[in-house]
Amino acid sequence: MKEAVKLIAFDADDTLWVNEPYYRGAEQAYVEILGRYVDHEDLATRLYQTEVKNLNLFGYGAKGYMLSMIETALELTQYQIDGRDIDRIIQLGKEVLSYPIEILPQVRETLETLQGRYPLMVITKGDLLDQESKVARSGLADYFGRIDVVSEKDPATYGRLFSQLGRHPQEVLMVGNSLKSDILPVLEIGGHACHVDPGYEGWVHEQVSDRCLAEHRFHSFDNISKVLTLL
Amino acid sequence: MKEAVKLIAFDADDTLWVNEPYYRGAEQAYVEILGRYVDHEDLATRLYQTEVKNLNLFGYGAKGYMLSMIETALELTQYQIDGRDIDRIIQLGKEVLSYPIEILPQVRETLETLQGRYPLMVITKGDLLDQESKVARSGLADYFGRIDVVSEKDPATYGRLFSQLGRHPQEVLMVGNSLKSDILPVLEIGGHACHVDPGYEGWVHEQVSDRCLAEHRFHSFDNISKVLTLL
Repeated sequence: MKEAVKLIAFDADDTLWVNEPYYRGAEQAYVEILGRYVDHEDLATRLYQTEVKNLNLFGYGAKGYMLSMIETALELTQYQIDGRDIDRIIQLGKEVLSYPIEILPQVRETLETLQGRYPLMVITKGDLLDQESKVARSGLADYFGRIDVVSEKDPATYGRLFSQLGRHPQEVLMVGNSLKSDILPVLEIGGHACHVDPGYEGWVHEQVSDRCLAEHRFHSFDNISKVLTLL
Repeated sequence: MKEAVKLIAFDADDTLWVNEPYYRGAEQAYVEILGRYVDHEDLATRLYQTEVKNLNLFGYGAKGYMLSMIETALELTQYQIDGRDIDRIIQLGKEVLSYPIEILPQVRETLETLQGRYPLMVITKGDLLDQESKVARSGLADYFGRIDVVSEKDPATYGRLFSQLGRHPQEVLMVGNSLKSDILPVLEIGGHACHVDPGYEGWVHEQVSDRCLAEHRFHSFDNISKVLTLL
């Protein structure tokens, strides 16, 4: 891999900084609000079902999440939810859109070491402005030559993006926390990928089966600095 | 201009296809819903104020519009709006996200003529997935080598984008309906720009003062095919 790699791409949320715990925090507050109306075993599952149903229209990101939270709340309360609680749900979403960026361990040091040795970029999905705002708030923007926000992280998207950059997939190393979005699609088109586990659970939509994983071989680390051992 | 131009970039909404009338239709339906609760002279102005207040968090696009519609409805009804009406507002937004694409007159013919003579691309702002979906639904995707969705259309964004494409602004012609977003920022960095008026009024946020316009000279047409007379 060492000789082949000419470009390193990083996922952003939960690879460079903490993200998922803010969504889980919003979800917990949401469940508490709805728990005052309905006695439902698994409100979070109902929210997830709405999110997945709306994905093809809303895409990934905090605004679609807010709208799915409101829609689920209306359905589950049979439209009886108080307007003030809808407003609280919007505030939860706005907090997710403006949370303080907490950079994950060794991220800055690793980027510092790689800078100059390789062109570095970010490939992330979600709301365009939200992702750009997080990169800006992180203070990491100067390490990256490009920030690309995409609507889906599949083999076709990675292939098109690498081709636009004049790179064969074999020349790219993708670093990310999501097996489904960052690792498998890049391996599938012949690229290199390195999994970094942030130490907390990701969104269930990003999880892949062991059977699917068994077909692929890739490096998996608990700290991003270990990527340096490959280069 | 004829010799200099090496790349033509098009705005999408209200340049290639009808968009603003769908937003105005949703707004009218929204005002009717809210009119049952409040006697307000200008509900549309209140909605616009919320939209502008939320722009730095939500950015441009239909999902932010939906959330601003809900937020304004809650405020104006003092949280008394019926849950079913919130649901109707969400449905209005979903319709905006899935309206049938009506291509503006002579767009297809003009792209057909330009194809092969120049590399063509789209530069648009709004929700990432929504804009990609509209390009796909338009059936025009094959004319364009690139589709770039950006969070803001200002001189810095255009400059960065053209530079990534290896083009000086002087080599680019931008075609669009919005003086504020498509014409003035491109002229400001030394590019060429051509205004095409779709024949209906645009969003008030995109309007610029006559004084501002007087400082600039650019071509303005009522039909996109007249762009061909410049090339």
